[in-house]
Amino acid sequence: MNETLVTVVGNVATEPDYREAANGSSSARFRLAASVRRWDRSKEEWADAYTSFYTVWAWRALAANVVASLGVGEPVVVQGKLRIREEEREGKRWLSADIDAVSIGHDLSRGTSVFRRVTQPRPLPADPVRMAAAVGASAEVTAPAIPDREPAAVGAEAPPF
Amino acid sequence: MNETLVTVVGNVATEPDYREAANGSSSARFRLAASVRRWDRSKEEWADAYTSFYTVWAWRALAANVVASLGVGEPVVVQGKLRIREEEREGKRWLSADIDAVSIGHDLSRGTSVFRRVTQPRPLPADPVRMAAAVGASAEVTAPAIPDREPAAVGAEAPPF
Amino acid sequence: MNETLVTVVGNVATEPDYREAANGSSSARFRLAASVRRWDRSKEEWADAYTSFYTVWAWRALAANVVASLGVGEPVVVQGKLRIREEEREGKRWLSADIDAVSIGHDLSRGTSVFRRVTQPRPLPADPVRMAAAVGASAEVTAPAIPDREPAAVGAEAPPF
Amino acid sequence: MNETLVTVVGNVATEPDYREAANGSSSARFRLAASVRRWDRSKEEWADAYTSFYTVWAWRALAANVVASLGVGEPVVVQGKLRIREEEREGKRWLSADIDAVSIGHDLSRGTSVFRRVTQPRPLPADPVRMAAAVGASAEVTAPAIPDREPAAVGAEAPPF
Repeated sequence: MNETLVTVVGNVATEPDYREAANGSSSARFRLAASVRRWDRSKEEWADAYTSFYTVWAWRALAANVVASLGVGEPVVVQGKLRIREEEREGKRWLSADIDAVSIGHDLSRGTSVFRRVTQPRPLPADPVRMAAAVGASAEVTAPAIPDREPAAVGAEAPPF
Repeated sequence: MNETLVTVVGNVATEPDYREAANGSSSARFRLAASVRRWDRSKEEWADAYTSFYTVWAWRALAANVVASLGVGEPVVVQGKLRIREEEREGKRWLSADIDAVSIGHDLSRGTSVFRRVTQPRPLPADPVRMAAAVGASAEVTAPAIPDREPAAVGAEAPPF
Repeated sequence: MNETLVTVVGNVATEPDYREAANGSSSARFRLAASVRRWDRSKEEWADAYTSFYTVWAWRALAANVVASLGVGEPVVVQGKLRIREEEREGKRWLSADIDAVSIGHDLSRGTSVFRRVTQPRPLPADPVRMAAAVGASAEVTAPAIPDREPAAVGAEAPPF
Repeated sequence: MNETLVTVVGNVATEPDYREAANGSSSARFRLAASVRRWDRSKEEWADAYTSFYTVWAWRALAANVVASLGVGEPVVVQGKLRIREEEREGKRWLSADIDAVSIGHDLSRGTSVFRRVTQPRPLPADPVRMAAAVGASAEVTAPAIPDREPAAVGAEAPPF
């Protein structure tokens, strides 16, 4: 209750870090850089005004798909629950802005993307080396050869413009 | 001023419709279906509670990338400005919920995506038949062969987790 | 799941309509007008570009407080779940943009407000005439004479700026 | 461009701090505590899961109205631009989550509020002692004695439910 939902448009700032717990639950996290741009009148061009950094957390299927899809520098749109977290580490106050992601996508205002539906959360090996290989190979296995027809009924129901 | 920003997670419900004006400005629109799901206790499963439909509008580079990337049934996350628009057509009141999109991405909670940065808004032919062909072919032309290095500095600046 | 949260800044456009069901549950609804303003260069002033109308629904304590607090024309900020609802009435298609409100407040960018905490959902009579009277009178009963101290501990915990 | 808009429901955690610059521009800031609540199954009651703290900034008329309206512990809904800001102070890394407020209101899910429209940004004295007195007294001066009729036309235009 009272959760704060936020949507941030930014760039992946660190390679997604994937973990799998002993009980099989998976998570991924990466740093997200969101730069606000302002018009610089003297130079007549857009310039970065400031950059906010977030730690984005993904879970289950989203975690597996994040690690299979996102690389450093890619532009993304992230929606999730915001939490400002404060803790002590080695005697120092530490604060981070965490987003518990609900949805993440490549930002089409910056490029194109090709999507492959994953019907089941794919089992990924916990070993990062093997994981990287598996991710590279998995597309053939998981990608449907024919276009996904599942929501076609939805399209049919849609009223015209 | 006072614009209403909204983020909707849903499915593309109609094939994106691309237009190019005489002055060269481009737009794309498609219907977006957002189904709210609720837990059905009697059946012990998730069920669609209701579906909201939106008309999503994209402009310039985003329009070109939308038409090159999105197909009916694909899951997306859309952020943009919401407008409830009312008009008369042939004597009937007509109301639509429009989203003037700022950012659109394939929803990674449902699958994986491969991204290709487009550095310039690509000139697309106004003829829809030629356009479709050009979109299919353009990936080779516009996709950078090497990973995009632009935001690497951003990654370097990122504080650790 | 997948609900669309939206925040709209606008004006109360109709007197809140309060209902109480036989089982004691209460609801209130009103129309909300959200005008987007744009700078008119020729006239050098802000002008309304367009207005979106929403139907805002409130429940339980929020419903009782809405009817006791809001009047036509007052500026508000509303957060809630957005639903685009379509139905047939007398053979005509009818579409409305509903917001199931989570939080509503008078917009302090347009004026000041005096707040009185209501600890319990107040029983309000179903009879609208008596209700109006009760609302007028109830402030003395429900308003704490001393400042609300409940979240003082929260304030004490707050780190400095 | 690319600003991150967020809406937070929480409690005022520190007395709003009002400043007026030599050029007459005014600002106010306060700490906002947003507690996420979760259902505790063992105790069968809602419990605070965690609390996020934000620094809320208001400007111009909103600043004056905030200082005239908000007290510690009061529940509010705040919409504004989110910025995660990092700086060094006395050799220590310091991070804060700032919200540059667009709209702030008392949360009617927790109580009632009485609104008074302020048509002009009120001149407030720079001297904090005199300011406090002025704020206390200003309501009589600035509050319109008759209900604000300005948006009545808006109400008239509103389509029925």
